[in-house]
Amino acid sequence: MTRDHLKTLLQDFKAGRIQDEDFLEALTITPFEMLGFATVDHHRALRQGFPEVIFCAGKTTQQVATIAETIVRQGHPLVATHASQRMYQAVKKKVSGAKYHRVARIITSGNPQSRRYQKVRGRIVVVSAGTSDIPVAEEAAITAEMMGNPVERLYDVGVAGIHRILSQSRKLRTASVVIVVAGMEGALPSVVGGLVGVPVIAVPTSIGYGASYRGLAALLAMLNSCAAGVLVVNVDNGFGAGYAASLINLPRV
Amino acid sequence: MTRDHLKTLLQDFKAGRIQDEDFLEALTITPFEMLGFATVDHHRALRQGFPEVIFCAGKTTQQVATIAETIVRQGHPLVATHASQRMYQAVKKKVSGAKYHRVARIITSGNPQSRRYQKVRGRIVVVSAGTSDIPVAEEAAITAEMMGNPVERLYDVGVAGIHRILSQSRKLRTASVVIVVAGMEGALPSVVGGLVGVPVIAVPTSIGYGASYRGLAALLAMLNSCAAGVLVVNVDNGFGAGYAASLINLPRV
Amino acid sequence: MTRDHLKTLLQDFKAGRIQDEDFLEALTITPFEMLGFATVDHHRALRQGFPEVIFCAGKTTQQVATIAETIVRQGHPLVATHASQRMYQAVKKKVSGAKYHRVARIITSGNPQSRRYQKVRGRIVVVSAGTSDIPVAEEAAITAEMMGNPVERLYDVGVAGIHRILSQSRKLRTASVVIVVAGMEGALPSVVGGLVGVPVIAVPTSIGYGASYRGLAALLAMLNSCAAGVLVVNVDNGFGAGYAASLINLPRV
Amino acid sequence: MTRDHLKTLLQDFKAGRIQDEDFLEALTITPFEMLGFATVDHHRALRQGFPEVIFCAGKTTQQVATIAETIVRQGHPLVATHASQRMYQAVKKKVSGAKYHRVARIITSGNPQSRRYQKVRGRIVVVSAGTSDIPVAEEAAITAEMMGNPVERLYDVGVAGIHRILSQSRKLRTASVVIVVAGMEGALPSVVGGLVGVPVIAVPTSIGYGASYRGLAALLAMLNSCAAGVLVVNVDNGFGAGYAASLINLPRV
Amino acid sequence: MTRDHLKTLLQDFKAGRIQDEDFLEALTITPFEMLGFATVDHHRALRQGFPEVIFCAGKTTQQVATIAETIVRQGHPLVATHASQRMYQAVKKKVSGAKYHRVARIITSGNPQSRRYQKVRGRIVVVSAGTSDIPVAEEAAITAEMMGNPVERLYDVGVAGIHRILSQSRKLRTASVVIVVAGMEGALPSVVGGLVGVPVIAVPTSIGYGASYRGLAALLAMLNSCAAGVLVVNVDNGFGAGYAASLINLPRV
Amino acid sequence: MTRDHLKTLLQDFKAGRIQDEDFLEALTITPFEMLGFATVDHHRALRQGFPEVIFCAGKTTQQVATIAETIVRQGHPLVATHASQRMYQAVKKKVSGAKYHRVARIITSGNPQSRRYQKVRGRIVVVSAGTSDIPVAEEAAITAEMMGNPVERLYDVGVAGIHRILSQSRKLRTASVVIVVAGMEGALPSVVGGLVGVPVIAVPTSIGYGASYRGLAALLAMLNSCAAGVLVVNVDNGFGAGYAASLINLPRV
Amino acid sequence: MTRDHLKTLLQDFKAGRIQDEDFLEALTITPFEMLGFATVDHHRALRQGFPEVIFCAGKTTQQVATIAETIVRQGHPLVATHASQRMYQAVKKKVSGAKYHRVARIITSGNPQSRRYQKVRGRIVVVSAGTSDIPVAEEAAITAEMMGNPVERLYDVGVAGIHRILSQSRKLRTASVVIVVAGMEGALPSVVGGLVGVPVIAVPTSIGYGASYRGLAALLAMLNSCAAGVLVVNVDNGFGAGYAASLINLPRV
Amino acid sequence: MTRDHLKTLLQDFKAGRIQDEDFLEALTITPFEMLGFATVDHHRALRQGFPEVIFCAGKTTQQVATIAETIVRQGHPLVATHASQRMYQAVKKKVSGAKYHRVARIITSGNPQSRRYQKVRGRIVVVSAGTSDIPVAEEAAITAEMMGNPVERLYDVGVAGIHRILSQSRKLRTASVVIVVAGMEGALPSVVGGLVGVPVIAVPTSIGYGASYRGLAALLAMLNSCAAGVLVVNVDNGFGAGYAASLINLPRV
Repeated sequence: MTRDHLKTLLQDFKAGRIQDEDFLEALTITPFEMLGFATVDHHRALRQGFPEVIFCAGKTTQQVATIAETIVRQGHPLVATHASQRMYQAVKKKVSGAKYHRVARIITSGNPQSRRYQKVRGRIVVVSAGTSDIPVAEEAAITAEMMGNPVERLYDVGVAGIHRILSQSRKLRTASVVIVVAGMEGALPSVVGGLVGVPVIAVPTSIGYGASYRGLAALLAMLNSCAAGVLVVNVDNGFGAGYAASLINLPRV
Repeated sequence: MTRDHLKTLLQDFKAGRIQDEDFLEALTITPFEMLGFATVDHHRALRQGFPEVIFCAGKTTQQVATIAETIVRQGHPLVATHASQRMYQAVKKKVSGAKYHRVARIITSGNPQSRRYQKVRGRIVVVSAGTSDIPVAEEAAITAEMMGNPVERLYDVGVAGIHRILSQSRKLRTASVVIVVAGMEGALPSVVGGLVGVPVIAVPTSIGYGASYRGLAALLAMLNSCAAGVLVVNVDNGFGAGYAASLINLPRV
Repeated sequence: MTRDHLKTLLQDFKAGRIQDEDFLEALTITPFEMLGFATVDHHRALRQGFPEVIFCAGKTTQQVATIAETIVRQGHPLVATHASQRMYQAVKKKVSGAKYHRVARIITSGNPQSRRYQKVRGRIVVVSAGTSDIPVAEEAAITAEMMGNPVERLYDVGVAGIHRILSQSRKLRTASVVIVVAGMEGALPSVVGGLVGVPVIAVPTSIGYGASYRGLAALLAMLNSCAAGVLVVNVDNGFGAGYAASLINLPRV
Repeated sequence: MTRDHLKTLLQDFKAGRIQDEDFLEALTITPFEMLGFATVDHHRALRQGFPEVIFCAGKTTQQVATIAETIVRQGHPLVATHASQRMYQAVKKKVSGAKYHRVARIITSGNPQSRRYQKVRGRIVVVSAGTSDIPVAEEAAITAEMMGNPVERLYDVGVAGIHRILSQSRKLRTASVVIVVAGMEGALPSVVGGLVGVPVIAVPTSIGYGASYRGLAALLAMLNSCAAGVLVVNVDNGFGAGYAASLINLPRV
Repeated sequence: MTRDHLKTLLQDFKAGRIQDEDFLEALTITPFEMLGFATVDHHRALRQGFPEVIFCAGKTTQQVATIAETIVRQGHPLVATHASQRMYQAVKKKVSGAKYHRVARIITSGNPQSRRYQKVRGRIVVVSAGTSDIPVAEEAAITAEMMGNPVERLYDVGVAGIHRILSQSRKLRTASVVIVVAGMEGALPSVVGGLVGVPVIAVPTSIGYGASYRGLAALLAMLNSCAAGVLVVNVDNGFGAGYAASLINLPRV
Repeated sequence: MTRDHLKTLLQDFKAGRIQDEDFLEALTITPFEMLGFATVDHHRALRQGFPEVIFCAGKTTQQVATIAETIVRQGHPLVATHASQRMYQAVKKKVSGAKYHRVARIITSGNPQSRRYQKVRGRIVVVSAGTSDIPVAEEAAITAEMMGNPVERLYDVGVAGIHRILSQSRKLRTASVVIVVAGMEGALPSVVGGLVGVPVIAVPTSIGYGASYRGLAALLAMLNSCAAGVLVVNVDNGFGAGYAASLINLPRV
Repeated sequence: MTRDHLKTLLQDFKAGRIQDEDFLEALTITPFEMLGFATVDHHRALRQGFPEVIFCAGKTTQQVATIAETIVRQGHPLVATHASQRMYQAVKKKVSGAKYHRVARIITSGNPQSRRYQKVRGRIVVVSAGTSDIPVAEEAAITAEMMGNPVERLYDVGVAGIHRILSQSRKLRTASVVIVVAGMEGALPSVVGGLVGVPVIAVPTSIGYGASYRGLAALLAMLNSCAAGVLVVNVDNGFGAGYAASLINLPRV
Repeated sequence: MTRDHLKTLLQDFKAGRIQDEDFLEALTITPFEMLGFATVDHHRALRQGFPEVIFCAGKTTQQVATIAETIVRQGHPLVATHASQRMYQAVKKKVSGAKYHRVARIITSGNPQSRRYQKVRGRIVVVSAGTSDIPVAEEAAITAEMMGNPVERLYDVGVAGIHRILSQSRKLRTASVVIVVAGMEGALPSVVGGLVGVPVIAVPTSIGYGASYRGLAALLAMLNSCAAGVLVVNVDNGFGAGYAASLINLPRV
């Protein structure tokens, strides 16, 4: 059902040419077709509070650049994850002022400060167990920053030298949300979860070798955390953690 | 190092019998022993905002009853998960007013309304895909209620009849957090995650047979959700979802 | 949005108290709430051509009996799978004429012949590799029969004695759909798939031991079938195979 | 037993040099040898209603070209899946008019309209959840088209924006078969399966990362679909889905 | 095609009512139907050199007894594996002289010495790593004995006390086949395989706990044996090992 | 080769009836047969420094009692793991003074103090993460005690309340070996491994549910520990940890 | 213990400088040292009836060439598996007459006919399901030929066109051993196993995609074969199958 | 809390400006911050007896060189594992005298003999099953040597030629620790564990193919070893084995 058909239906109904029950029936049988006139993007922004994010993996450089241009032209901030240097080159030509975050492999554009998201509840702390986990941690941090959150980073504070994380416990306890990124045995979220009374989002990474099975060991460890309040996202999914942390950090009226 | 040793050390330091550097050194070498005087329970309440919860599985009926009594005597609310009917009988003798939630298999005591947790940000909605998922959903719901949250339940609204969940989208969008409990293919959190702009906690259940592999299918589906903002807990971990949702629902000052 | 709210909205619109665009907007933002007045069961019958089937596992005897009674009272045929003997006793008291298929563990009521499903395209052949696979095969066969299909059974014709299935190739080739039920190495669907030019639905069973891993070996074999046209359902899911075969066997106008 | 031996046997029998029982015995002991004179291709076309399809993976460019030529020379339509650009170059030299479908990686030749397959029952709808799933979806679509079916494509309609698929529900309900292609959490077939009363073939893809385990998450989700009537093929097996859908869409007399 | 149809076809052909090519065509299109007159059992005995063995798991006591009686009545030796004590009681009533091998859980009847299988090539040695592996080892040993082979047992000679197996190396080297049964780490077949120049059949058992995963550890170890000539059967499949060893031990003319 | 044959060979050689090279050859070809005269038990005691330990699982009560009696009669200390209460009753009748350790499910007899094992290098500390892990921890502790080691227990000091283990760091650092027993996410060995400069033996337990997969999560975590010096044994293998710790704690001259 | 030490020991013993018991004791304590003088290669040839085979994977080109030269210089036939073209170039310079089997990736040298292995019991038949399985099948075939066996090849006779293998059943039944090589669903060994009364060695290959999991599907299928007498080797282990088949085909005196 | 803050706190306390209880409270709430003044490296050296080891994988060449320079400048020995040739070139420019161990892929600097680690208890023996396992074995050996241990290597002594390891049993029995490195079926540690009375550290390697699943087969085998006293590290973790062996070999006073 196109918008035109819908309009005709409405007119007919208003003019009394269709009965109440028949009109209801028509809507029941084809309840969703009427959405066709709303573009996906706008609907998403309304529905979820943040416009579409481009997941670049599996897209061509050209596709990324075109979608990026469209999003920016509509006045939305741009976040493109899993982006290569070459994709950035293509985007930069169409979106002046686009920035490339090399470690996180994210392209961004727009000023987070100017947005309604700045009325957040507090600070998001992003913790990484090792230096190799930093790319995933940065993906989370930059996503959260682009959604208007102040972010504090605590990197390379894994459990093998436990005092490193313990010495930061005050920062952790006063955060709004803590994102903990760890590979190998994935033990850090349990330690952090035991130190704080705020939500902890655990991100397993594929860092490790042998029986780490590309992040499976860390993933299972995090799912089985003995600390209550630990929530888990997919292996290497820094974006998802940053996005969810931002939702948690939004104020509810 | 007991509290007595610590006190002696302090006196010696204050009296100038120990040098600054030596005192620091002593603290450095044995930094954690001084925590011995804080009981685990109290420390946890301070640190995490909610006292200890009893995980009854693997404990004897007698152990459960004794711990329950201790928690209640200290003025804390009681939450005991994975509790059998028999454990409840034993607890009831020591804790007058204890209640048993048969479906959720939880023993509780204490009045959620009387607690500081009532100053929460909003409503927690607990959704279940099928009727068989209700016990896990109830574990989440009652945990959240005991932590002072208003909880709304939407049960048996799985994706095979998609209009069931769609017709509830307003309730979902206005929640503070949504907990989605689903077994089998675990598709419901993705649908809900696409409808709302609030954090979604996905709880896979072991409901299913054959290639559900006791919840593995649902767990993997939820971890791979194409909807941003979906956070996952362990299979059948209703308690963890309710606890984390409560942390999210707490106001940050 | 309840039906009442919807009706008010309609009246307001018809009376000109709401503008076209505002009315559209209201429908856009809450597009699915209006479905609330349709009961799940009826909607399903309209949408999918067969009323709800009761999956008894994880339901109480009382629940099964009540749902069964409701379905029959609405004039629908009854199919309840994974049903115990005791459930049957309870159903029989409420649904006179209910039958129990012990091997398939299915309760049925109603006459398949009297239904519009009898205008099917052809015969469904159900094949089992071993005698131990028969319960799953029967679940498929009875489901298909209850949906109005003529069903032919070929049991215990596994590949270790290949002439057993080869000698039946004419029957297989003239079927409308062939359902092949096999455990252990799950090789039979590939052989059948190579013999016929009709759709083959493969049902792995959990029959086997050791490295059969409760049907995983058979499931993987069937998914990797070198015969084109083999479709797979979950381990032990005889019902799903019978249901899908019935859909295939329905005439399209 | 070669064809010559067989002919001798026949002559001896007809001439009465061999008794009925001895002739039967001979056929029983060596029942299959007589098939040696039938080429595999012809037999397959008779048996299954469609000539051999070339699975190019693991074959040399030369082999692919030679087989393609043979098939076309016999008057059969050509379908070669998993074909590289280079293979196409080689085939084109031997088969004039061969076409290369770059996204689907299929080489075809021949006019589907001119074939007896055009007397199909209805339309096959191919749905993809994301844009990354399109290559597999195209493999299914082109296979079905080459087998004489009208195909309708609905791409990028995944569950995270549920209205996208809902707004197409009429198209889905009126199809003869629906093929649903999805990676990541593989939830789309369940949603589609709940909307329609026609057979749904679910194709998991290897799209995703981390705990998608190269399509395993989607595969398990589809096998555990709570919607009855969902049938599953191997990960990335677009061809298999298109082939099976064509068999379903064939009329039975 | 029944035997009657076949006979008519033959008569028509002999009488010249059917042409050579048409007769061939008929046989080509329905090549296997003519086997219908041979009973499965007899065919198997002819084809494989040993009559059917009853796999009792998943069969009722009554079914086992009936099949056992039929086999014995046809003059065949009886071997029924995975048989319970109760099944034996039922069989004994119908087959006088039936014996029950309690450890191996096998029912047998008939005298191996009286059979043509006694012309074997040599001795089969059955080795077990631990005492817990003996039931599976016995299943292999008794199967081999019932098929007419002399069997020598070497039990509890696992690798943790390596001299136990080394001191038996002469016996191993002079065997016709060696069956090695082991659970836990499944290392014994590799050691034996390195000591001898005869075929080694490795049988993993489900003995072990934790990361033995019910025989998976042993199974993988055996499949990866660095000793050439090690062949593997399913976990706990003593029967399969004994059967295959017997085939190896048969003389070829 | 029996001892008698060996003696004859020796006599022949000494008497010059066999040449040097022939004698060497004989030994080369049958190098291990000469060990036949040493009983397994004695050899093990010589070879490994501790007599045989009875693994009771899969043995009958009678077998356990008989082996226990034999070991004690030879003057060895008795350690029988995985022993039931009933096995203990049977052993007690034959071995006066046998003790049953109910939690660890171990039967022991003999005085560890009276043995040469008491000259150990230091103290073994056994740590458990939770109370549910205590049975496995006790199996380790009692095994180590029976092998003559002083053992210190630190139970219920898991990472969710990190100060519990930190406050014990001095005890851990001064141990000879630390055994860490943990289920669920298995994070504790990494924390302990980072605190100490002594060998750490990690024992995963099957404590947990859902995605703990009966100890797999903990096992993988321990194998991937970021703390150097962590060694792992099988899931629930307290005995193995206690035994290996004892070997480490033995002095080398 | 070097050979010199051993000789001294022998002299001392013969000269009466060591008592019988002391000599025995010395041999008991150090029973295996005396083997030091035998090179591994010679011992293996004696022990197992065929000299060392070079597994080239993980070896440098130089190492392969050197070992090949040594083996040939000692008069042994050369078999080097998993060999690259470049390795062959290097070997050819040192071993004149070396041949490279490109498909099987094997280097050989020496004349199988001239060896004692030619007194084999019969013919080895190597069967492959698809053309992609041929490299593994050739590895098996050439290994068997080099060990002196007559080999017959039946390639591309998979179960999807069942008459292809059935028409060869006589050849299969009269073989000494049948090796069946198959990827994807691995069904062929079950069909062959049901047709013959000789040992069947099943070789799973890594041919396939998606849920074939690099040969796991085929491996599991073969281990669960419902046909008795099927023995399995590692995925892609053509060499192992050819080697074991050769051992089976050796005559026992 | 920085060191400055801590000092102020101390002064305030000593001067009586803070009460005992308040000072304790301050320490309790932020117990670990005071460790901030100790650099990680020094603390680690104190805590664990060996300075930081560089794990080069996932680090840039520049990062490796800089960290190496810092470690050496502080007077520590240098061990950098998983190092490429290029990393070595970069390190050599900053650390004169750095050595590259090509097979083990380790960069070292410093003289093990000059260190307090030389007072070790005995000799560490490193055993490898095959030649392909040598890189991992060398990683273990060089790590142990750099920590001041005498190391003896026994390479290519796998179980398929069992006399190779048996002939070395005296060397094994007199070691302080034995490290056993093996891929494929991982059987060697069980054999060694049965021969000696000293701790055995088993290192699975990813050597193998097919069902070795990159070391999983060997890992599972080692975890299930029937020989008591076998301890396991991660797949290919030679460093971890060498490190742990060194800890075991340290004398305890």
